[in-house]
Amino acid sequence: MAKLIHTMVRVGDLPRSVNFYSDAFGLNETHRLDFPTFTLVYLGNEASQAELELTFNKNQEAPYVHGTAYGHVAFAQADLDRSHARMVAAGYAPTPIKQLEQDGVVLARFFFMSDPDGYKIEVLQEAGHYR
Amino acid sequence: MAKLIHTMVRVGDLPRSVNFYSDAFGLNETHRLDFPTFTLVYLGNEASQAELELTFNKNQEAPYVHGTAYGHVAFAQADLDRSHARMVAAGYAPTPIKQLEQDGVVLARFFFMSDPDGYKIEVLQEAGHYR
Repeated sequence: MAKLIHTMVRVGDLPRSVNFYSDAFGLNETHRLDFPTFTLVYLGNEASQAELELTFNKNQEAPYVHGTAYGHVAFAQADLDRSHARMVAAGYAPTPIKQLEQDGVVLARFFFMSDPDGYKIEVLQEAGHYR
Repeated sequence: MAKLIHTMVRVGDLPRSVNFYSDAFGLNETHRLDFPTFTLVYLGNEASQAELELTFNKNQEAPYVHGTAYGHVAFAQADLDRSHARMVAAGYAPTPIKQLEQDGVVLARFFFMSDPDGYKIEVLQEAGHYR
């Protein structure tokens, strides 16, 4: 059976990204591979076996372009309001908390923010399907 | 602790994507939310708690654009050669299997393929860090 193990994004500044994901989401560097032209850094924590893979291309000169196809990665948090307040205090400029409702039922509570390279991140209240 | 729970991509044809991820990677539809302007479908299996979230925007007319920033999602497989042969037979046109080496040590064996919307997918031999 195929196991979803990571999502890869290209980044422009490895220490900046590593620090961001550590501070904002408690992800640790679990593995690093360094080659002449690129470095791969894997970020994860005990909450999930799935990781973020950061690719840093050493000879990349032009900034990467965000298309319209890829969406985001999502993290579940036990206390969304507390997480949101912490993101605001840290200067990460999260969107206001919204909720997705259907027939009066709240299906999801969430906010969005961006990482240092502009990748969107969804943060969801741990509840229902999102856990 | 933040838990990485899904990666979202926008797709142009939900049944096409659902069938592809089921056939190629054994992912099942775990949850679906349908709204007037969009549908969300979650795909997963027992191998991982992380999922793929497919977003289908009903009023989307122009094709989505793949930028250069986002990379791929990766799946680990217990038998990479068998998986590769199956992808070839199914017409998914995987790249040849390659390996990443450093100082004579094989760090990863993998191939790439694309989903129906052109998102890149890495398939890795389950070994070392990739499991």
